[in-house]
Amino acid sequence: MSDLMKHLVEFTHCDLAQAEDARRMMSLSLLDWAACGRAGAAEPVSRITRDMVLAEGGQGAATLFGSRACVPPRAAALVNGATSHALDYDDTHFAHIGHPSVAVIPAALAVAQDRDASGGDFLDACLVGFEASIRIGTWLGRAHYQIGFHQTATAGAFGATVAAARLMGLTPDQTAQALGVASTRAAGLKSQFGTMGKPYHAGLAAQTGVEAATLARAGFQSNPKGLDGPQGFGPTHAGEGNLAALDGLNKDWWILAISHKFHACCHGTHAMLEALASLPPPNTVDEVVVATHPRWLTVCNIPAPATGLEVKFSYAHVAAMALSGVPTGALESFSDAVAQDPALVALAAKVRVEADDAIPETATRVRVNGQEAAFDLDAPIPLDVRQEKLLTKARALLGAEADGLWASIKAGPDLGALT
Amino acid sequence: MSDLMKHLVEFTHCDLAQAEDARRMMSLSLLDWAACGRAGAAEPVSRITRDMVLAEGGQGAATLFGSRACVPPRAAALVNGATSHALDYDDTHFAHIGHPSVAVIPAALAVAQDRDASGGDFLDACLVGFEASIRIGTWLGRAHYQIGFHQTATAGAFGATVAAARLMGLTPDQTAQALGVASTRAAGLKSQFGTMGKPYHAGLAAQTGVEAATLARAGFQSNPKGLDGPQGFGPTHAGEGNLAALDGLNKDWWILAISHKFHACCHGTHAMLEALASLPPPNTVDEVVVATHPRWLTVCNIPAPATGLEVKFSYAHVAAMALSGVPTGALESFSDAVAQDPALVALAAKVRVEADDAIPETATRVRVNGQEAAFDLDAPIPLDVRQEKLLTKARALLGAEADGLWASIKAGPDLGALT
Repeated sequence: MSDLMKHLVEFTHCDLAQAEDARRMMSLSLLDWAACGRAGAAEPVSRITRDMVLAEGGQGAATLFGSRACVPPRAAALVNGATSHALDYDDTHFAHIGHPSVAVIPAALAVAQDRDASGGDFLDACLVGFEASIRIGTWLGRAHYQIGFHQTATAGAFGATVAAARLMGLTPDQTAQALGVASTRAAGLKSQFGTMGKPYHAGLAAQTGVEAATLARAGFQSNPKGLDGPQGFGPTHAGEGNLAALDGLNKDWWILAISHKFHACCHGTHAMLEALASLPPPNTVDEVVVATHPRWLTVCNIPAPATGLEVKFSYAHVAAMALSGVPTGALESFSDAVAQDPALVALAAKVRVEADDAIPETATRVRVNGQEAAFDLDAPIPLDVRQEKLLTKARALLGAEADGLWASIKAGPDLGALT
Repeated sequence: MSDLMKHLVEFTHCDLAQAEDARRMMSLSLLDWAACGRAGAAEPVSRITRDMVLAEGGQGAATLFGSRACVPPRAAALVNGATSHALDYDDTHFAHIGHPSVAVIPAALAVAQDRDASGGDFLDACLVGFEASIRIGTWLGRAHYQIGFHQTATAGAFGATVAAARLMGLTPDQTAQALGVASTRAAGLKSQFGTMGKPYHAGLAAQTGVEAATLARAGFQSNPKGLDGPQGFGPTHAGEGNLAALDGLNKDWWILAISHKFHACCHGTHAMLEALASLPPPNTVDEVVVATHPRWLTVCNIPAPATGLEVKFSYAHVAAMALSGVPTGALESFSDAVAQDPALVALAAKVRVEADDAIPETATRVRVNGQEAAFDLDAPIPLDVRQEKLLTKARALLGAEADGLWASIKAGPDLGALT
């Protein structure tokens, strides 16, 4: 077995006693995932994949977003993966270049429900799967992404396999076999961005994890060198093979660098929104100045947005919403009516956007009535603050349901109360 | 839509009135596929995948090799693909660099059974799927294969999608969407050769076809440029983009160059076996000379094989079997007992193998007691002769069942009588 495989297999079954902060971050991502999944259950890609597996039926204890039916675990993994990524509002890891939760959690949940695992074991499996997908995504590197592969789908499949293998209690050899199966099944291309293919990738990754572990458990013999050996997944998919990506497993938790979306608009506007929120709310607004890195001016600086979708890409209008108390974490805030609201349009007209290439891409500086503030998305967010922000987001997505969801995550989690 | 996609989509729904020979070849490959599938139903990869979907259960009219249960079409496609390729005794197309039947037929059968299609419509769908997979495999080309991808899995997925799309009566746009889904789901690496991963690839391809068409029919929006557009499947998977591979669709039928295996041993020995069979059976054997291309001497020239598996790679022993009337189309002929049979060992000692680089790789020349014969596998086999040879093979695999199977293929085919 290669060093990479040895590290991965050992990590799959490691003791997590020292991973307190990582486990806490995992439970926050679980809250965010469940909120995104519930809020996305009516999206077309969610309905289409769900209808497919509901028409198939079958025995199983795995639950689905948007249905009271229980289905076999492979089916649930596919549907819940696609559903939780349907809004593209779930978490991101920038080094991994992907969305870890939507590939890993659906696989772990489906297997955990199928095997009646404890909430704690489920959360641990999510955590090792998360971390493994982040590490494998980084091992594949930017070259893999640039040529056209989508790490959420590809690295995600390996993370999902690790999570499923841990919950099934696979032996080290079976774990390697499962990763071998995932190596020949993992797929997903960036050319699907902007279509239902993107959220579908998350479902494919999750399903691959469940299927690979299920087959390996039954004695399936694959090539356990299929990930990094000759003509393995990495070498055939433009993987960089950054072995440093495996350093410090079960010690340095890269999950702690997860980025959550707190606003349902373009990521380029998020630093501005955080900076505005740090200022005392003004009674009247005379002047707003937003200074940002020049690259964003071609991305999210639509001066007079006509639709809700355009609002998501308008510094001025989003700033006006925030200054008027419109909840930017709520999907429905980005409506055509909001785009055309006269008070917001008038306020947006007072916002001046300036380019400043001394400001990092992740940061924005604002000035409201002469008072300045700045925010950098790279700044660490204390877990308590993050928790409050994620609860606010969940409430914006789900209303009162959000607090019940968080209570059932803290109490276990309760596997039956997530979807 | 690109020219490639236009051709493919149009071909999916084409009129097949002029394709008599191709349809006949398709029915022969169907016989061969069903015989290989039935004979492979007890193999470990068949049992493992079948057990997985039987444990899931579900509603569906699709049948499985090795079980009386009916399951949902996606499940049947996966299992029947893996099962029919388990023995690696199914058909090959050398330009496609893959095994068309095991990817395409399971998808077509599952969808046809699910929709209660006629036998004729099923056979037509198999034919367009076959031809499409051969053309796409050739479009991807040798570079795709050499870098590590397995056309049976990759090109096979597009063929399976075409077959399923035809049977479901998808619109041209839906067909393009289905091919878009297949583009982001197709996968399979040659590094799995020699493991259960290889037959599993055929199942993956078949299942991809069923799933892609099912989703497209329900309104799934993918990227219809996902096959050959920027960062599409071809460009990201070392595809050569040989557009000539699409020439003469529905006119020149490349399926007619399908190669069937008539002997359950290394392909390198097949030309010798055909040459020997063309000579009158000798009463006694004094001397046998086998002249073949030098590359085969490192592949299938084990002089004194100790096991049934080694016999498959021994010119001398396989020649002795043929000269003694041992059926080389039967799997059980390649046993340890046959390897150690004193009469066969004595006869094998009379066989001299010579290298001759003037002989093509596909040909062999033999001399028995001074009488010469030669055979080239590239030589066309008349359909009547091929039919007889495939029936002989099917009888060797299935016994008396083979004739019933052939009768039910000729009479429809009868979809319920194939697996």
